[in-house]
Amino acid sequence: MRRGKSLKCFLAGCHLYQHSACIYPEIPNSASAIFQASRISLIHYPESPLQSYDKFNPLRHVCPMASRGGVLHRPNKESLIATSRIHQRSFGSTTINIQRNPSFSMINSDDINYFRDILDDNTVIQDEDRLSSANIDWMRKYKGSSKLLLLPKDTDEVSKILRYCNSRRLAVVPQGGNTGLVGGSVPVYDEVIVNVGLMNKIISLDKVSGILKCEAGCILQNLDSFLANECYLMPIDLGAKGSCQIGGNVSTNAGGLHFVRYGSLHGNVLGLEVVLADGTVLDMLGSLRKDNTGYDLKHLFIGSEGTLGIITKVSILTPARLSSTNLAFLACEDYSSCQELLLKAKRGLGEVLSAFEFLDTNSMDLVLDKLEGVRNPFPSSLHKFYVLIETTGTDDSYDRAKLETFLVNSMEGGLISDGVIAQDINQASSFWRIREGITEALMKAGAVYKYDLSLPVEKLYDIVVEMQLRLGSSAKVCGYGHLGDGNLHLNISTPNYDDNVFAQIEPFVYEWTAEHRGSISAEHGLGLMKADKIHYSKSTETVRLMASIKKLVDPNGIMNPYKVLPQSIYSP
Amino acid sequence: MRRGKSLKCFLAGCHLYQHSACIYPEIPNSASAIFQASRISLIHYPESPLQSYDKFNPLRHVCPMASRGGVLHRPNKESLIATSRIHQRSFGSTTINIQRNPSFSMINSDDINYFRDILDDNTVIQDEDRLSSANIDWMRKYKGSSKLLLLPKDTDEVSKILRYCNSRRLAVVPQGGNTGLVGGSVPVYDEVIVNVGLMNKIISLDKVSGILKCEAGCILQNLDSFLANECYLMPIDLGAKGSCQIGGNVSTNAGGLHFVRYGSLHGNVLGLEVVLADGTVLDMLGSLRKDNTGYDLKHLFIGSEGTLGIITKVSILTPARLSSTNLAFLACEDYSSCQELLLKAKRGLGEVLSAFEFLDTNSMDLVLDKLEGVRNPFPSSLHKFYVLIETTGTDDSYDRAKLETFLVNSMEGGLISDGVIAQDINQASSFWRIREGITEALMKAGAVYKYDLSLPVEKLYDIVVEMQLRLGSSAKVCGYGHLGDGNLHLNISTPNYDDNVFAQIEPFVYEWTAEHRGSISAEHGLGLMKADKIHYSKSTETVRLMASIKKLVDPNGIMNPYKVLPQSIYSP
Repeated sequence: MRRGKSLKCFLAGCHLYQHSACIYPEIPNSASAIFQASRISLIHYPESPLQSYDKFNPLRHVCPMASRGGVLHRPNKESLIATSRIHQRSFGSTTINIQRNPSFSMINSDDINYFRDILDDNTVIQDEDRLSSANIDWMRKYKGSSKLLLLPKDTDEVSKILRYCNSRRLAVVPQGGNTGLVGGSVPVYDEVIVNVGLMNKIISLDKVSGILKCEAGCILQNLDSFLANECYLMPIDLGAKGSCQIGGNVSTNAGGLHFVRYGSLHGNVLGLEVVLADGTVLDMLGSLRKDNTGYDLKHLFIGSEGTLGIITKVSILTPARLSSTNLAFLACEDYSSCQELLLKAKRGLGEVLSAFEFLDTNSMDLVLDKLEGVRNPFPSSLHKFYVLIETTGTDDSYDRAKLETFLVNSMEGGLISDGVIAQDINQASSFWRIREGITEALMKAGAVYKYDLSLPVEKLYDIVVEMQLRLGSSAKVCGYGHLGDGNLHLNISTPNYDDNVFAQIEPFVYEWTAEHRGSISAEHGLGLMKADKIHYSKSTETVRLMASIKKLVDPNGIMNPYKVLPQSIYSP
Repeated sequence: MRRGKSLKCFLAGCHLYQHSACIYPEIPNSASAIFQASRISLIHYPESPLQSYDKFNPLRHVCPMASRGGVLHRPNKESLIATSRIHQRSFGSTTINIQRNPSFSMINSDDINYFRDILDDNTVIQDEDRLSSANIDWMRKYKGSSKLLLLPKDTDEVSKILRYCNSRRLAVVPQGGNTGLVGGSVPVYDEVIVNVGLMNKIISLDKVSGILKCEAGCILQNLDSFLANECYLMPIDLGAKGSCQIGGNVSTNAGGLHFVRYGSLHGNVLGLEVVLADGTVLDMLGSLRKDNTGYDLKHLFIGSEGTLGIITKVSILTPARLSSTNLAFLACEDYSSCQELLLKAKRGLGEVLSAFEFLDTNSMDLVLDKLEGVRNPFPSSLHKFYVLIETTGTDDSYDRAKLETFLVNSMEGGLISDGVIAQDINQASSFWRIREGITEALMKAGAVYKYDLSLPVEKLYDIVVEMQLRLGSSAKVCGYGHLGDGNLHLNISTPNYDDNVFAQIEPFVYEWTAEHRGSISAEHGLGLMKADKIHYSKSTETVRLMASIKKLVDPNGIMNPYKVLPQSIYSP
């Protein structure tokens, strides 16, 4: 066991790591064009985690060329066919070869005039350059053809927009930081884009209870920076925190690095204000830890990806920001040791455990091979598995000694074969770089088939082994992810895209996941990409009730159409 | 600061304390008859927290005279009028003077024959003695006149029962341990009682993740005893744990003592199986920490008090059972010190804090005056406020030293004027006895008007002060509760019931709570008692959507009628 010096300054204040698992795409279902697309340069985003919350300008962010004028283009048959072709190329799956819902109207100059009447001038955007960045997701996987981007500045404006769109049957796509991974936040066709980025005020912080109330457009990182001054922190931490907005986080029920410690947004979000399709404002913005007065409807909107309404305000419980964080990087020789280590960590580290991540030897091999400057903490040989354990508590020297004792006992008990505790923030960053660099390394290695699965922990690695057996030498199968949450990132790497390999993977991977009562989307949502795959994880009766609720809340189906639920329910 | 000896054995294993806040009634709205009722002996319940999970017999529990036969009594006009009179006497509020929904059928011999066909003989109960205990709540506040109690043994039987009741428009009241406080689990008129107590199997425990799957009729205490053997614990802990069932806990979104540490059931419940009014079985029994595939519908059923369906199975995340628990009893001289102490405890004790309770001087005075054997830890004088801080961690000596250091610093900083740490389990029990004895002391003092409010912590004690000013010497106002959760138990004591005092309290207390965006039911639910008061805590639009969802899921309104939502929505 290697031991380091005091980590007193390590991670005091803001958490600086970028967590890759949350910012990279799921693999699309087929088509080599996808892999070409993944190699092109990405849209620029203000991703610096140090970005100050008071300097962020959503107008600039969303609309880099806000001063330009725009011309209304009414979509015609030809442009819609063209759009359809783009879709087929971009999505690469026949199952997402969806048709525009003919019950939706197309936008006209009267509509534009209405929006110009109710909104400020520079928040009704028709400029094509500005629209182009709002029409495409940051991975350039999904591209719509919206002709209108609206930037409401308050709830009343959101309400007016939706009421009008509903009366006119104009489809709407809600957009926040547009950092989603499954095509949920960009138009599929010509939906009106409603971006809440201008609604970025912090409303209040109860300094005793740590309950924060804010508008939906607040950037996650900005909220966390604000809270740092009050010794609180946001209970979620994502790689996209410099761009993603809290409204989007809640709409997609974002997970992230500290889920194992602070749990789900269903537990942390205390209240929401939501605007429904017909413009009704649902004030559920309570800021109480306990409230048993009727059905807790806010949960319908957490994770419904904007298909039931637009979240405009959020009330959230923020935990105390504790001063001491430590990080260990460990080697295990089999998966059962990783499992047992998790069990012992939950019992032995209990109250201070804040992250438990793992990667396998193929992942490590790939990172060392493809990424420059990454150093193997145990250079003598490769091990079968690696585990990162992070602790967060109030007493650095005690917490660190506790982690050391835990690791010594784990090594003596044969659970780990080697281990090192980060000595300073640089070493901690280098450890996280290994875990977070996997996706980048995979991208550099060629084609990659990516899956984000939730599985019972004891079954979690079986799918990796089965896939290795299934694919043999034709592919390199990597397994890594949030072991503490039962969340596996299954990634299959081949030098070039291969239909035969893909046919070996799908639908097997979804069927296997369903058979083991897993989830085909642990933390990314269904969006457009997996809307037609919901049956792998949810029963027919449950999906039917979802559809009934969708129809009840949004009878015209204007809210984020083609997403989350199978297309059939959106049909007239 | 008084310091004690090692607490090594204190609270290792099961938590033995009874937590009063969860087992005593809200005050009814008026009428002195209530207070007479509260003095009569209560229904016997198997409340021992040490009761073994494998010895519990729901047949015996629910139906103490199971061997007796029964005769069908069809309710006639006279019996319904009589029932109505009972209601008026029992509820003591004109606002709960509800009428039987005439769209519901009355049960007949064909119905009985059907149930006898699909269920085992001894699970179709018509015996009047056995029905009488199922028709009344444990506080004897609410009394129905059901003529039929059904004890399904599995989900399929629940489904058949509901499908039939729905087709016949027979109203149904789901019942678990019948330990609710707001009349949610007993019939109002002649509803069929469906008690799931026979469905008490533990299905599985994932020993790595701590995810427990069980049937809804499992007793909370039995689950906790089972988990103790595996070093896990239930994330909720209630005074009624020896009787209450997990299905009922989830249906009422029970809170309890350790809410401040483990949070809401919305965060801990991972999956549910629910039977809807038409018999549809919703399999949402996932056992995954992360699952972002569609709307998370299980949350609709958490806290909906059986009005949307019957929960038949539960999957729940159980935290590691840590070995070290310590308890301090402290004195503060003003409410702002209590608040600041909470803030400092969250930061300084952070990861080990597991309870933060408080009581005021009136509460303490009453306990010392009315309860025998209760000893004042600080006998020289009364203080204005008292706080109990419990910590739970993995290292007893360190955790205890940490608590001592925290308390010394708090005393030096002037936040606390005196304090003592429990030296052994007896002393800990005696401290909890003070906190838990308040309700009993209030009952002995005469009439008591009880409210269970959620409020922002900084406003929480203002209502106590306002009420004292408002009532002057005519009443003794007591404030206590779960300060760490912002949950106040406001109790007003008078020697005898007084309409003038009541008129001073209501609707003021609800209006004040609404004005400060509090909740009129923090942890007890609305049930029958506060169904018509939901507007104090929820907006009109939100209640309207709740009603729409109720109508969508249960169009005939047979599920637990007259409860949670205002009566008007149940009308034909």
